[in-house]
Amino acid sequence: MAERLYLYDTTLRDGQQTQGVQFSTAEKLRIAEALDALGVDYIEGGWPGANPTDSAFFEAAPQTRARMTAFGMTKRAGISAENDDVLAAVMNAGTGSICLVGKSHTYHVEAALGISKAENTENIARSVAHIVAQGREALFDAEHFFDGYKSDPDYALEACRAALAAGARWVVLCDTNGGTLPEEIGRIVAEVIAAGIPGDRLGIHTHNDTETAVAGSLAAVMAGARQVQGTLNGLGERCGNANLTTLIPTLLLKAPYADLFEIGVERAALSGLVRVSRMLDEILNRVPMRQAAYVGASAFAHKAGLHASAILKDPATYEHIDPEVVGNTRIIPMSNQAGQSNLRTRLADAGLAVEKGDPALGRILDRVKARETDGYSYDGAQASFELLAREELGQARRFFELDRYRVTVERRRNALGSIVSASEAVVAVTIDGEQILSVSESHDEEGNDRGPVNALSQALKRDLGKYQASIDDMHLVDFKVRITQGGTEAVTRVIIDCEDGKGRRWSTVGVSPNIVDASMEALLDAIRWKLIRDAG
Amino acid sequence: MAERLYLYDTTLRDGQQTQGVQFSTAEKLRIAEALDALGVDYIEGGWPGANPTDSAFFEAAPQTRARMTAFGMTKRAGISAENDDVLAAVMNAGTGSICLVGKSHTYHVEAALGISKAENTENIARSVAHIVAQGREALFDAEHFFDGYKSDPDYALEACRAALAAGARWVVLCDTNGGTLPEEIGRIVAEVIAAGIPGDRLGIHTHNDTETAVAGSLAAVMAGARQVQGTLNGLGERCGNANLTTLIPTLLLKAPYADLFEIGVERAALSGLVRVSRMLDEILNRVPMRQAAYVGASAFAHKAGLHASAILKDPATYEHIDPEVVGNTRIIPMSNQAGQSNLRTRLADAGLAVEKGDPALGRILDRVKARETDGYSYDGAQASFELLAREELGQARRFFELDRYRVTVERRRNALGSIVSASEAVVAVTIDGEQILSVSESHDEEGNDRGPVNALSQALKRDLGKYQASIDDMHLVDFKVRITQGGTEAVTRVIIDCEDGKGRRWSTVGVSPNIVDASMEALLDAIRWKLIRDAG
Repeated sequence: MAERLYLYDTTLRDGQQTQGVQFSTAEKLRIAEALDALGVDYIEGGWPGANPTDSAFFEAAPQTRARMTAFGMTKRAGISAENDDVLAAVMNAGTGSICLVGKSHTYHVEAALGISKAENTENIARSVAHIVAQGREALFDAEHFFDGYKSDPDYALEACRAALAAGARWVVLCDTNGGTLPEEIGRIVAEVIAAGIPGDRLGIHTHNDTETAVAGSLAAVMAGARQVQGTLNGLGERCGNANLTTLIPTLLLKAPYADLFEIGVERAALSGLVRVSRMLDEILNRVPMRQAAYVGASAFAHKAGLHASAILKDPATYEHIDPEVVGNTRIIPMSNQAGQSNLRTRLADAGLAVEKGDPALGRILDRVKARETDGYSYDGAQASFELLAREELGQARRFFELDRYRVTVERRRNALGSIVSASEAVVAVTIDGEQILSVSESHDEEGNDRGPVNALSQALKRDLGKYQASIDDMHLVDFKVRITQGGTEAVTRVIIDCEDGKGRRWSTVGVSPNIVDASMEALLDAIRWKLIRDAG
Repeated sequence: MAERLYLYDTTLRDGQQTQGVQFSTAEKLRIAEALDALGVDYIEGGWPGANPTDSAFFEAAPQTRARMTAFGMTKRAGISAENDDVLAAVMNAGTGSICLVGKSHTYHVEAALGISKAENTENIARSVAHIVAQGREALFDAEHFFDGYKSDPDYALEACRAALAAGARWVVLCDTNGGTLPEEIGRIVAEVIAAGIPGDRLGIHTHNDTETAVAGSLAAVMAGARQVQGTLNGLGERCGNANLTTLIPTLLLKAPYADLFEIGVERAALSGLVRVSRMLDEILNRVPMRQAAYVGASAFAHKAGLHASAILKDPATYEHIDPEVVGNTRIIPMSNQAGQSNLRTRLADAGLAVEKGDPALGRILDRVKARETDGYSYDGAQASFELLAREELGQARRFFELDRYRVTVERRRNALGSIVSASEAVVAVTIDGEQILSVSESHDEEGNDRGPVNALSQALKRDLGKYQASIDDMHLVDFKVRITQGGTEAVTRVIIDCEDGKGRRWSTVGVSPNIVDASMEALLDAIRWKLIRDAG
């Protein structure tokens, strides 16, 4: 019989302690809805009264299946729970659950608060009792619990017992500075339970300062704790909190957790995990971490030639779970370590069926290798790879030829005396023997100069004769530049991502010592790939 | 008495399996030197024969204190170790240690290789014996060991025993698909040791597919394994390998590991950890992960108001280690006292003594903050930071003003019919009221076009009037470009590194939507900094 394990999300509170993160109220609402759809049990929405957006969030808080929880701290000494205005602001948020942080480490009680242990115990008990008296659910976050337990176990336990005796549903053991390693967390949780505090009243709250927050949470669960606190994408103060985006699939899919426990997240909701993770990155305007467990774009990318060919026979050989279960996809990138079978799969993905043993395969691999030595990289530029392969297979169409271009960047004082920059590009292409000359300045919607690559792109797209319709619905969405080694010289590698109106997204690469040349090469590949796709 | 624990770095081999990563030979050499200075015991340099840059690396391999190791695979069936050309290429790299991967999972032996278990065992034994017969140290990477052990423990152990009996120094237990959780790793390693394989012959190689690679390695060490494999910054296939950048400080600083074990990394070298981590990111042109354990820029950033004020009283309250021990720094919100004392230290580094309480300190902090919001980054551009501070302190000298510039890049057919590119820049500067106009084409020693930034740099340096002598001995040594967010728009951030004849090296930053503009800004800062230094 599987035991129930509760998930407590604190993305909106501890997650907001991440350096550079400040959610708006609207963003908090979006995240809360996504968390609820995922199936967490608790959503900690923030600290009402401490932060205007947090107060506003609780006023507009959505109806959720998850228990909406307000965060605050235990009442101060020398004042009653009823008269503590900080606590009152938390109570006034009107949530069904309230989580209060308080001290459980003797040193912090005496040095930071400057009160006696007995006073601190009373603050905990009175605060919890005040919540319970109003018919709300109370949780007690035992700050610095593990460090406190190591220096004064009796008092650390006393603080927890006081909260439970006053009616707290949960006592959450917090590793506040993130320094406790998983083995020690497991041992201490087991000792706490042996000391008489039931595991189904214990939560675990870890931080990732030693890159073991997930493992520390799992160790606490194995030792008997039944509530796990964490954040989406591991957001949080310093190195972040335990990552629920990792813990959820581990608890739902992996032995022994999947057999021992039941969580509120359904398998159907799990297939939205990648989407939820990306949504958060989008709100934060962060580049998603490619290597993230389960949800990263590289999490199921098989680069080694040996691996890639085994994957083709049986995906389970190099994958611990099926990527689709979490909404992710398998990637077999091109690289100079890939073998021919890997290559044929890549070609098939591009709609190019090539027989096993076709000599073109060897030529394609050789050319990829040679170009990678020059500084090209096809891992992230599948469209350029396809064009290269098509040339070797005799299936390339050029559509148009670039005859020449010229781009000028100028910085000078304008008539008003302020310094402005302007970029202008001229491009000459030949289509069916006829030359077309186009010119364009670079500017965004507000008329600001966006530089030479933008000018070239605009000039190229201005008139492409009979292919114009095809490129009108394509636009550049990302542009990456790195200086790399090509042979013996430093060269610039440019990778361009484009999208079109049909929802396609593709990437191309260009390499040259001249950054404008490298960009132009990637741009031309991007347009040719689009023309091939549209030609069908 | 502390037991010796060995660190085996595979950044250059398994780390290169990271999607999008392809080191050049020069980059491999730089990384190997940094690893050696850090104090790892083994450096796995690559797979000679499988990859041209790997072969080139071993030809040029530096003399290291660490054991340089070549990676390969066990000999194929039906061929002797002496006649296996894949193995021969590995042997020919001439390293003192050789690590061969082979199968230890019955399913993979039978399904992937299509041979019998006995044949596989013989392949392992013969390959290892061949290495040992040549007086080299042999390591055996037991691929899929944990999955193999779970499905057929007898054969998994037989494969390991065969390698040891043939003379292998180490058998490395690999969790190849990254699916085994720490608790299970610990249990299985203990069982392997109980089955008679000594722990001081066992290595552990984990992957981060469940975000527990570090914890899995620690569990194996606690169970008795004495070699830990991993990579810098956790590079590696899919979600990466165990992160040595995390494991090293944990093993050296944290209980119980620090007391139980001795590793080859000295505390003095540990203070270079942040620098090594950043160097790798710089080579890969990756944005360093702010939240990385120990080395991330946010790892000791205290945002919560409660935490920040406690930190001022006693840093140990919210920090599990002293950040300086790993070469990191504490970050506390700019507005408070601690922010200002950090700033004064940084200014003193630049030779600018500023009194405590000087109102310029607040202005400098505000301006740094505002510019970082626009996309600037002063972490890697100390010279630009110094110029900004000098302006607020009234200690800036401009020397010259840039009036205007124009740069043109052209690509066309030359007289011989081949396509060539050319870049030309015109720059106008005013010195002491007199305007100087310079023009230059871009070209390297062989006359090849190096692009618009090079052309601008050459034009600027061509005539700087009375300051000419000062800039004649400076040259640009590196140029990094990143697309980043400035306010709401994507902008280009350029960082330029320069050197002069006096051996100084300095870095400057420029930001603009226009890459040429951003480069020009960084160039001008670089020249001004040099003129200030030469003025003394």
